[in-house]
Amino acid sequence: MKNLELDLGERSYPILISRELVGNSALWLKYIAGRQVCIVTNETIAPLYLDNFKALLGEKEICEVILPDGEAFKTLATLQQIFDTLLENNHNRGTTLIALGGGVVGDMCGFAAACYQRGVQFIQVPTTLLSMVDSSVGGKTGVNHPLGKNMIGAFHQPNCVLADLSMLETLPDREFSAGMAEVIKYGLICDAPFFKWLEDNIAGLMRRDGGLLEEAVYQSCLNKARVVAEDEREGGRRAILNLGHTFGHAIETAEGYGNWLHGEAVSAGMVLALALSVELGWLDESVLLRGKQLLQMAGLPVAPPENMNVDQFLQLMGRDKKVLDGRLRLVLLKGLGVSVVSSDAPENTIAHVLRVAGVRA
Amino acid sequence: MKNLELDLGERSYPILISRELVGNSALWLKYIAGRQVCIVTNETIAPLYLDNFKALLGEKEICEVILPDGEAFKTLATLQQIFDTLLENNHNRGTTLIALGGGVVGDMCGFAAACYQRGVQFIQVPTTLLSMVDSSVGGKTGVNHPLGKNMIGAFHQPNCVLADLSMLETLPDREFSAGMAEVIKYGLICDAPFFKWLEDNIAGLMRRDGGLLEEAVYQSCLNKARVVAEDEREGGRRAILNLGHTFGHAIETAEGYGNWLHGEAVSAGMVLALALSVELGWLDESVLLRGKQLLQMAGLPVAPPENMNVDQFLQLMGRDKKVLDGRLRLVLLKGLGVSVVSSDAPENTIAHVLRVAGVRA
Repeated sequence: MKNLELDLGERSYPILISRELVGNSALWLKYIAGRQVCIVTNETIAPLYLDNFKALLGEKEICEVILPDGEAFKTLATLQQIFDTLLENNHNRGTTLIALGGGVVGDMCGFAAACYQRGVQFIQVPTTLLSMVDSSVGGKTGVNHPLGKNMIGAFHQPNCVLADLSMLETLPDREFSAGMAEVIKYGLICDAPFFKWLEDNIAGLMRRDGGLLEEAVYQSCLNKARVVAEDEREGGRRAILNLGHTFGHAIETAEGYGNWLHGEAVSAGMVLALALSVELGWLDESVLLRGKQLLQMAGLPVAPPENMNVDQFLQLMGRDKKVLDGRLRLVLLKGLGVSVVSSDAPENTIAHVLRVAGVRA
Repeated sequence: MKNLELDLGERSYPILISRELVGNSALWLKYIAGRQVCIVTNETIAPLYLDNFKALLGEKEICEVILPDGEAFKTLATLQQIFDTLLENNHNRGTTLIALGGGVVGDMCGFAAACYQRGVQFIQVPTTLLSMVDSSVGGKTGVNHPLGKNMIGAFHQPNCVLADLSMLETLPDREFSAGMAEVIKYGLICDAPFFKWLEDNIAGLMRRDGGLLEEAVYQSCLNKARVVAEDEREGGRRAILNLGHTFGHAIETAEGYGNWLHGEAVSAGMVLALALSVELGWLDESVLLRGKQLLQMAGLPVAPPENMNVDQFLQLMGRDKKVLDGRLRLVLLKGLGVSVVSSDAPENTIAHVLRVAGVRA
């Protein structure tokens, strides 16, 4: 069992990391203040975990929302289902929402909690590696818009995060790999020793060795918690968490959300960001090669999709939130574990890197 | 010209109150930080003020959203129009939204600003008396749900509020009266001298005398600003601003949003709250009679609608946000200008007061 605290003053909260965590409700029931609880989950997770979870809530007044599974449903329209259920069951401001699922469930449940009666409490119970190490930590919540990912949302911090490693046993290989993209990201952007540890242990991690997983999730959350504590609302340093994400969002938008998993798009996007850093003369090519190799060993794509062209990439990247007054701000590396947010890359250099990576002109 | 500051630490902002205020853009252009501006208004206001307003914005990159007019359109679906426009025009995190309209426009524009890319800046330009003295001040934003009013929203403070009294010249009488309900409310809940001033000046106010209006808007905003500064997120004292609102929301829900104006429902609701305070032995009957008389002189209804029954009232009141763990919390008076938030009123006493007021059993 490993615990850490995300330090955000009066909005601080604990992240509990362990196998068999959810079953031990004595560890977390104290984070539900009121009588009413609404569990938000999806069609895939509900048959696996919902009944067990409800049984652990004792005397609470429980309602549930089972959303369709997938990024394609992360919309305002689906969000309405959560509000409908809360109001039909007369849930008041004292209610606690519980996100039982991956990143999509967490982002939507968190956003519903941010908006329901102008804000109620919620708890994250991530069931995927991706959501354990990334989306459940840091308070970003929201939904997609047809014209862009995560364009509608709020910063809303949970009461606690329960990362139960046992839940990873039911995770399909492809989704496990997608989570590894964000794990590897922490090594690249701010933790060279962790990157080396991942290189040494990638085989065991891909076999989902319990002890290695606990360490990888803990180090990832620790890195994320440090960055978020410095910059809760993304005024500055927090942006480094978006390594590969501007390229990645373009891929997700072009391919349709869910066809490329978020982690897969981020993996290909990080390789592009590293290649751009090399092209700018900021990064030794060996880091690009090591990054690419580690991502491949984690079962991830390292090249952009074949059906996109350069103009499409640039246009979709221009829609990303990380644009300020027309200048594309990208996370780039100046060494392994050393990241910067920069508007220095000229558009024609970005286009060149995309073409070299095989994107059509 | 009167100015006051809503003191909320780093979220503090000015409220400017004057005739001919909007036309004098030197006074307020400084509150728009970026290059991009999105004006949110409605079909009624647009023909009156939109072109003039746009002309004042100089070199800004402007887009506009013209919403249908009315509380019936204060929904998530209508909100989507604002997001569509922002994204179609590539507005980024540096954009400023401007709410040019009454309470519905302000609540929706503010909520859109709270959620767009997890929060952008906005300015309130209230065009109705109601929104000048109430909804544009204090940062409450949101939309309605078929099962309850303002059930989905956020606290999001504007950069500034521009209360241009000249805009009240185009306001229909019925809406002017609805605004007076909230003006009178401040006297009742926390400012006995202001209540007496209103009694002395109600005839001139109803003729929309400029000097009297400036004073009434200023005193109302001052009272609201003081209460909000003490309790930004409605943990306690801010709730006194809801005098009559739990009864009022029940009326609005039962009658369909927009058929009874918000201020009209609040007026009838305040009379019920005062009657309940008298029934509990907390308030002298003379205050009830004076309140009723002042509301009537302002052209407002002082009795609940004839087609509601007691059970319907109680059920709809139970859905209001001001319920915590099953107990109905109401704002009641213990004297003119002395309000309390209390769960002490038994349901049968509330039912009795409703019946005495003419509501069917």
